Amino acid sequence: MSLIVAKFGGTSVASPERIQMVAKRLIASRQAGNDVVAVVSAMGKTTDELVGLARALNTDPPAREMDRLLSTGEQVSMTLLAMAIEARGYRAMSFTGRQAGIETDCAHARAKISRIHAERIKEAIAEGFIPVVAGFQGIDQNGDITTLGRGGSDTTAVAVAWGIGADVCEIYSDVDGVYTADPRVAPRAKKLDEINYDDMLELSSAGAGVLQMRAVEFARKFNVVIHSRSAFSDTTGTFIKEATPSMEEAVITGIAHDTSEVKVTIRGVPDMSGVAAKVFSALAGNAVNTDMIIQNISKDGITDISFTCPGADLPRAKETLDRIVGEIEAREYLIDDDIAKVSLVGTGMKSSPGVAARAFTTLGENQINILAISTSPIRLSMVVDAAQAAAAVQCLHTAFGLDSDSVFEETQLSAEEIAAKMQKGR
Amino acid sequence: MSLIVAKFGGTSVASPERIQMVAKRLIASRQAGNDVVAVVSAMGKTTDELVGLARALNTDPPAREMDRLLSTGEQVSMTLLAMAIEARGYRAMSFTGRQAGIETDCAHARAKISRIHAERIKEAIAEGFIPVVAGFQGIDQNGDITTLGRGGSDTTAVAVAWGIGADVCEIYSDVDGVYTADPRVAPRAKKLDEINYDDMLELSSAGAGVLQMRAVEFARKFNVVIHSRSAFSDTTGTFIKEATPSMEEAVITGIAHDTSEVKVTIRGVPDMSGVAAKVFSALAGNAVNTDMIIQNISKDGITDISFTCPGADLPRAKETLDRIVGEIEAREYLIDDDIAKVSLVGTGMKSSPGVAARAFTTLGENQINILAISTSPIRLSMVVDAAQAAAAVQCLHTAFGLDSDSVFEETQLSAEEIAAKMQKGR
Repeated sequence: MSLIVAKFGGTSVASPERIQMVAKRLIASRQAGNDVVAVVSAMGKTTDELVGLARALNTDPPAREMDRLLSTGEQVSMTLLAMAIEARGYRAMSFTGRQAGIETDCAHARAKISRIHAERIKEAIAEGFIPVVAGFQGIDQNGDITTLGRGGSDTTAVAVAWGIGADVCEIYSDVDGVYTADPRVAPRAKKLDEINYDDMLELSSAGAGVLQMRAVEFARKFNVVIHSRSAFSDTTGTFIKEATPSMEEAVITGIAHDTSEVKVTIRGVPDMSGVAAKVFSALAGNAVNTDMIIQNISKDGITDISFTCPGADLPRAKETLDRIVGEIEAREYLIDDDIAKVSLVGTGMKSSPGVAARAFTTLGENQINILAISTSPIRLSMVVDAAQAAAAVQCLHTAFGLDSDSVFEETQLSAEEIAAKMQKGR
Repeated sequence: MSLIVAKFGGTSVASPERIQMVAKRLIASRQAGNDVVAVVSAMGKTTDELVGLARALNTDPPAREMDRLLSTGEQVSMTLLAMAIEARGYRAMSFTGRQAGIETDCAHARAKISRIHAERIKEAIAEGFIPVVAGFQGIDQNGDITTLGRGGSDTTAVAVAWGIGADVCEIYSDVDGVYTADPRVAPRAKKLDEINYDDMLELSSAGAGVLQMRAVEFARKFNVVIHSRSAFSDTTGTFIKEATPSMEEAVITGIAHDTSEVKVTIRGVPDMSGVAAKVFSALAGNAVNTDMIIQNISKDGITDISFTCPGADLPRAKETLDRIVGEIEAREYLIDDDIAKVSLVGTGMKSSPGVAARAFTTLGENQINILAISTSPIRLSMVVDAAQAAAAVQCLHTAFGLDSDSVFEETQLSAEEIAAKMQKGR
């Protein structure tokens, strides 16, 4: 007998049939003795379609109107889900962001939740209703509708869970939990029973696309337990929660990879003080998020500087470099977008020296060349050729003792499919 | 320099291109020195699609959820129109029914407007915005969203016009005004420059589908001037307003026809007191709206009773008659759905005797048989064979001096097309 918030994404409510499935699941949870609150995203591609309509009319749509437009998507799915629940003989009541008491700042399209007044939801539960809350939206101090940005529904769910003091925030998606690696790439990947917030955040930022980082950050801040699970099965998924002693046994919790970054190399850079600063301030000034930076040993006062950045930032990076390469009197710049970043993540790394050495040795033994390295206290990231990404994940997965006894059955993907999937994941 | 409310229906905002046209028109009105407020319906078939989704999930969707669902349609069109206006360099602000201060009773799906607080709209006008109001929706005393029923956007427009004290409420549609008859049926029909509320209401109830009756009733009650005009041209349309001396000159203002009714004849009815009462109370009890009733002279204590009713009520009429025909010991009943009701409408009829005589003579001279007759002080309706409907309208149009010198160019429609068009008009 628990108090549960259950969040369903756009895929889970994409059609009347899927909405029926969600209604069944909520009712099953009620029948099992739980109190349950649903949080929903807009149906399928609704949000994209609304954005398309808006852009057809205004290349730079006013933010207030855009948020009101987009918020209708969740209003449709919440009412339809409420109707589906009622059709099965249970009482349901839908809540817009405003009615759910979700207050945000005024930053349209990327609003942050500042407060939540969950009294009306609690009342509805007490009266026997299954509340259905529109994800992704809130209301600012002027009474205007705001949206939380893409993936904001996960954040709504965590915020509602915190607001009503739920025991757990279930986040349903098309995967059944968090794995030690992407099972389509590493067939011996294991589903984790639980993972702590820090590891989850590092895995997410390193390319594992299961959960929105913002939602995990919110959950960590307010200590909300998340249960990441499949919308299409009843299997228990992965619990994301505070670190417990038993969780810290493993040195490495999981391996993420990300093929959405690109590597840029500036060649023939005069090795003078201030040159690197000039390059990277210009890039930062143009909103290019540089990730790893490598400077080769200089030779004859000339060096090469490489950095990685998200593929989405590449047009702005090029624009900056077209200008700066001449200014710093470098020779040229080259772009390599056939790269992948493979990251080992684990809070256990802090107390286990030798992780880096073992990782480098493993890749070396497998003839995989490391193009760049970066680290945090609980993460070790290495850039390799995209074509070697799957092999890198697999051999590291084995070397760090993560392999499961059973082999994941889904066919292994091609490098292109992995790349596409990973970019979607971000 | 006027204060204008301009209402655009679903067809006028069905696509981004159409929305651009509406934005242009509003801006042109502003440039001409007017203050203007737009009221919009949902885009094209949006409302039907939402109803379809709801019915797929719940054959009897909860009214509160249904209204919240449907209200999203106008929220989409209002924001898109606001964006289109802003893209052209003018400031726009969208208003939901709630924000426009449209208070209704609690009758979901057919709410009546009880009050309007138009202060926020007036403020927006004063600040230089073009307010864009969602039609069709309001808010009840519990703060729940209500909808006004089909065609409710016209009523919203009239209510807003009254609330802000507008000089005129422009209602844009695909026709350019009110005609003396349907020009597709009577090619010599004339557009009326103006028509009084009573005549407009009678024409609407007799089948002329230009305006929602409810909106006209609201306008009459609060003396709001309506301008019915085309969304696709700049031509002046028809003003609907209080009767003026000049308007009363014509005996007949217009001729409406309606092919959506059916005629039912009960044969071999014993001519005893109380039998007719039994039949018509049973029909009324089953929500069949009987229109005209004809009882033939009885012969040997046996008579026939005929009545007309909307085609939509026919299933319920049949259900009632299957039961009642046996009870009253009548012989049988017959259904004729190939009929048309042709109505002469005009406040001038009150002071001009002889209208009925002239109408019957005219139809007789044209070999058109009259199947039933009903009247009001300002209307004379006659039922004829559907195949003769166009001929009846044309000869009456000529006989009552309504013919224009110019001939309407659109090809004359077939009886089926007229029937389809007329049913849509209702």
